[in-house]
Amino acid sequence: MRYSLLAGGKRVRPILCIASCELVGGDESLAMPIACAIEMIHTASLIHDDFPCMDNDDLRRGKPTNHKVFGESTAVLAGDALLSLAFEYIACKANNVSPDRLVRVFAELSSAIGSKGLVAGQLVDIESEGKVVSLKELEFIHVHKTAKLLEACVVCGVIIGGGNDNNNEKVRIYARFIGLLFQVVDDILDVTKSSMELGKTAGKDLVSNKATYPKVMGIDEAKNFAYHLMNQALQQLACFDTAKAAPLYHLAYYIANRQN
Amino acid sequence: MRYSLLAGGKRVRPILCIASCELVGGDESLAMPIACAIEMIHTASLIHDDFPCMDNDDLRRGKPTNHKVFGESTAVLAGDALLSLAFEYIACKANNVSPDRLVRVFAELSSAIGSKGLVAGQLVDIESEGKVVSLKELEFIHVHKTAKLLEACVVCGVIIGGGNDNNNEKVRIYARFIGLLFQVVDDILDVTKSSMELGKTAGKDLVSNKATYPKVMGIDEAKNFAYHLMNQALQQLACFDTAKAAPLYHLAYYIANRQN
Repeated sequence: MRYSLLAGGKRVRPILCIASCELVGGDESLAMPIACAIEMIHTASLIHDDFPCMDNDDLRRGKPTNHKVFGESTAVLAGDALLSLAFEYIACKANNVSPDRLVRVFAELSSAIGSKGLVAGQLVDIESEGKVVSLKELEFIHVHKTAKLLEACVVCGVIIGGGNDNNNEKVRIYARFIGLLFQVVDDILDVTKSSMELGKTAGKDLVSNKATYPKVMGIDEAKNFAYHLMNQALQQLACFDTAKAAPLYHLAYYIANRQN
Repeated sequence: MRYSLLAGGKRVRPILCIASCELVGGDESLAMPIACAIEMIHTASLIHDDFPCMDNDDLRRGKPTNHKVFGESTAVLAGDALLSLAFEYIACKANNVSPDRLVRVFAELSSAIGSKGLVAGQLVDIESEGKVVSLKELEFIHVHKTAKLLEACVVCGVIIGGGNDNNNEKVRIYARFIGLLFQVVDDILDVTKSSMELGKTAGKDLVSNKATYPKVMGIDEAKNFAYHLMNQALQQLACFDTAKAAPLYHLAYYIANRQN
């Protein structure tokens, strides 16, 4: 559990959660336990996604994948236990957040990673391997596999920070664009960078015949699409205090321009 | 998810939860969403435990195991999604329970199935295969693999029903004995019944060289131990209203005398 959780990574999800809490006037400390839990949930999903029967990945965050180091049985359990720990952590460590807000956080997070969220995306992703995939199907995969959890990150941040439904709607749309943006950039990096630069196996999408944006729309159009998504995300932040929205502005720029 | 969840099974865990809620004066309807969620959690753990890299089981609840029918990748995801759904179900369906009680329920359940609970038991169980295992190690396995979640079932029931800390302590000890009893009887059945009678592969413990009570203490002593555990469990119920405790009494008898 420690090996994968503390292996680094961009920590985009916890940052999104904390930045959204601050966006609506909440303190960082309120969001911290939930931000940590979200990183546990994300890591749990990575451990299981890397399995031989799933994406079959050997490299993650610049290190050998969990099952490569500890074996498959331990990796199954490490993923399960990280998922449990995430919920335990929220229930036990977020003492300064009112229980009714915590229950809403549980609802958001668990729904984002379940059969109508992350798991749906991963399933369709695996089933689409080697097949011709339309843009619409590709979007389904990434909305579910990536964007839903990012959405949950910002919505949880807003809930904890005491934001209203209108705030929730704006950050939810922001996160949806960020989620797609994240994946489009991921796909572009996969074909333009080396494994060493990425910290995970590069060129994998080509080898595995997986649907990607560069493959479906070409590399230049994919880059234009990324720029469009970034701008759409930024527009959602217009109604917020500029200083408080600054971290979310910069995060969108960072995601669009990241090199690994 | 439906295939494994709705495949039958004894439903001991949800029954424990509902009976404990009623034990302290709560209504069945209050406990129902949590009881359902607990069965989802239990089923999720069974799906993952049956994997080739884990217990490698072909038969469960009288049907082929999940990965045998749907493949390993779907089975990994079905387990993950059932675990998520359990938490989502509690957060969204238990509207009649106060949020502070729900947060305590989340804490109990997630801690019971994590790295200090179910996962710890499963890990030591797998690692002990083919080795000589002491009674103490065997008890560690079963306390963690089985009893911790049963404990959580009754404690959650008491929390939801509005019981006090003293009630909690009594049912927790009751569940600990029930948990061990459950496993001792499981081990006895494994060597005395057929696969058809059990609905899962019989004689598996012998083949896989796994530590069991009949193996460590002999079949007769194991039966005596089961009787002792049942009586210890029943003693914990003495301080409760007899009528309200009746389901838990009968459940202990049922577990001690079950034939599959």
